[in-house]
Amino acid sequence: MTDFSFCNPVRIEFGKDKEKHIGQYMKEAGAKKALVLYGSERVRKSGLMDVVESSLKANSIEFAQLGGIKSNPVLSKVNEAIGLAKEFGADSVLAVGGGSVLDSAKAVAAGACYEGDVWDFFTGKNPSTALKIFDIITLAATGSEMNCGGVVTKEQTKQKYAISAPCLYPKVSVINPQLQATVSREYLVYSASDIIAHSIEGYFTASVHPEIVRAYIEANIKTVIRTTEILLADPSDYDARAEFAWAATMALNGLTYVGVGGFGYPNHMIEHAMSAVVDCAHGAGLSVVMPAWMKWYKDRNLSAFERFAREIFGLKSADEGTLALKVWFDKIGTPTSLA
Amino acid sequence: MTDFSFCNPVRIEFGKDKEKHIGQYMKEAGAKKALVLYGSERVRKSGLMDVVESSLKANSIEFAQLGGIKSNPVLSKVNEAIGLAKEFGADSVLAVGGGSVLDSAKAVAAGACYEGDVWDFFTGKNPSTALKIFDIITLAATGSEMNCGGVVTKEQTKQKYAISAPCLYPKVSVINPQLQATVSREYLVYSASDIIAHSIEGYFTASVHPEIVRAYIEANIKTVIRTTEILLADPSDYDARAEFAWAATMALNGLTYVGVGGFGYPNHMIEHAMSAVVDCAHGAGLSVVMPAWMKWYKDRNLSAFERFAREIFGLKSADEGTLALKVWFDKIGTPTSLA
Repeated sequence: MTDFSFCNPVRIEFGKDKEKHIGQYMKEAGAKKALVLYGSERVRKSGLMDVVESSLKANSIEFAQLGGIKSNPVLSKVNEAIGLAKEFGADSVLAVGGGSVLDSAKAVAAGACYEGDVWDFFTGKNPSTALKIFDIITLAATGSEMNCGGVVTKEQTKQKYAISAPCLYPKVSVINPQLQATVSREYLVYSASDIIAHSIEGYFTASVHPEIVRAYIEANIKTVIRTTEILLADPSDYDARAEFAWAATMALNGLTYVGVGGFGYPNHMIEHAMSAVVDCAHGAGLSVVMPAWMKWYKDRNLSAFERFAREIFGLKSADEGTLALKVWFDKIGTPTSLA
Repeated sequence: MTDFSFCNPVRIEFGKDKEKHIGQYMKEAGAKKALVLYGSERVRKSGLMDVVESSLKANSIEFAQLGGIKSNPVLSKVNEAIGLAKEFGADSVLAVGGGSVLDSAKAVAAGACYEGDVWDFFTGKNPSTALKIFDIITLAATGSEMNCGGVVTKEQTKQKYAISAPCLYPKVSVINPQLQATVSREYLVYSASDIIAHSIEGYFTASVHPEIVRAYIEANIKTVIRTTEILLADPSDYDARAEFAWAATMALNGLTYVGVGGFGYPNHMIEHAMSAVVDCAHGAGLSVVMPAWMKWYKDRNLSAFERFAREIFGLKSADEGTLALKVWFDKIGTPTSLA
């Protein structure tokens, strides 16, 4: 087990109707003027934005709004939001949507406290201060609700890079599985792929990997497999939706990386390069990349691949485990080839 | 999965030689005057206190010290420390020792900011403010290093009660497995028993229990069983010591209770009543209580007991699982009867 520092101060509010209290949570954290970011107009049509607006008003939080943030969020939109946050004098950003909205919000939070180009924070510089970040997460996948990182694409150069700093932990993240029940079948399976990808990167590539942490990762992956199958049969199953959401959060909140030796993010690196060019959904790109990468990489860490096969699928060899994952991706309908 | 709020802001500094930086960690958290609490004089003889003192001095943190805190810590000692903290004008408490020292430190931190009797906080009142709490934990067992609770005994009335409030989360907890390598064989197995007890209370008694959380708990228990056996054979095995320590921390930092329905602490309640009277080691008392309680309780939640038997020991029936745990306690040498 390697030495580590761990501190994750995010307050999670998980469960039914929690979004109704977002204004109160923000007030408790000292927010007074918020920029509310969102993606598609679905959050208005569904009535979610009405709930948010009343809660903010009831807690005397002034707000401005900006919608239109897309999957694989782009720098130009982040810059538009930074301009608006500065003009409005926002002390906080509230993301209402999925990982793309929240990742954008993190960049906006850092950029609004900075005179230079926010892209600096994606290319080496670390933000030391940021607006307060809050979110109501409507798609379980990225784990962004309980970590301090985000990914944004610079359109001109097709660079899909990450920002990360302790000041970018959300103050409060609202996870209401009910709000995730209307996610399309397609995005459910892409999310499953994304969570599994977050889980296997360190699992397969780390130079040192404590067994206890492996077991936590396996718990996350098995939960995703089990609950995805339940949700494909019955999208309204609340408990499955809730466990799926919590697995997404736990897969990337730092706990699956404690005590872990040097590791890479090869599947994400390949997928980021790919989706910056072809603009496919992140999870769909990952399910294309993973089985192929696993086949290619397995001899470098055979025991981890054998353990994966055994613990996740009850199989013996590394190849059987990789094949079983590919077969499962095919079964749930997330792509395993670019074609 | 039930609704929940989760926020655990503790900064964990885990690994070799981390105690050398305690002064720096405390300074970063704003500490200037610390009351240092400890148990036996072993922390002096081992040289640990010298390391602590130099680090505090190097970071210009003034300090007073009080030793002599015992297992099953008592209220009279807590009150002595509160008096000293007030007199000294401490803004923080540093616990150097095991769970008893840290639990006492939490009570001291609350009591030093309160005009009334600190026992009020054990009998219904909640502290809203406390001195900053720091610790160097030298015995992995209680999980106190990553939660906001503590247990103290009032000698006159033999009441062993708990204090708990968000202001009692440590700011920084140092976990260096090397410092735990000199723990006696006896205390190692008592600690194993204690961690398993923390793990099973909710597991067996909760009205609702998400499978993902069960899997985390099973990961903790299996880690304790595996690493205890390694450490009994070779107390110097660093990785086993580290995983054992991390399992202890993870078993009671709140994550094994998220989304869990109403539950009790029957084994702890029985043991607290017992050890307030007979003053046995907490873990030893628990290994006496658990198998008997499990046998008595199993029909109330049979599926959980069957799952425990299967996942932990690869066995089929609830009775086989309970027996296997008792046999394992006997094997490692923690008592299973009061005799």
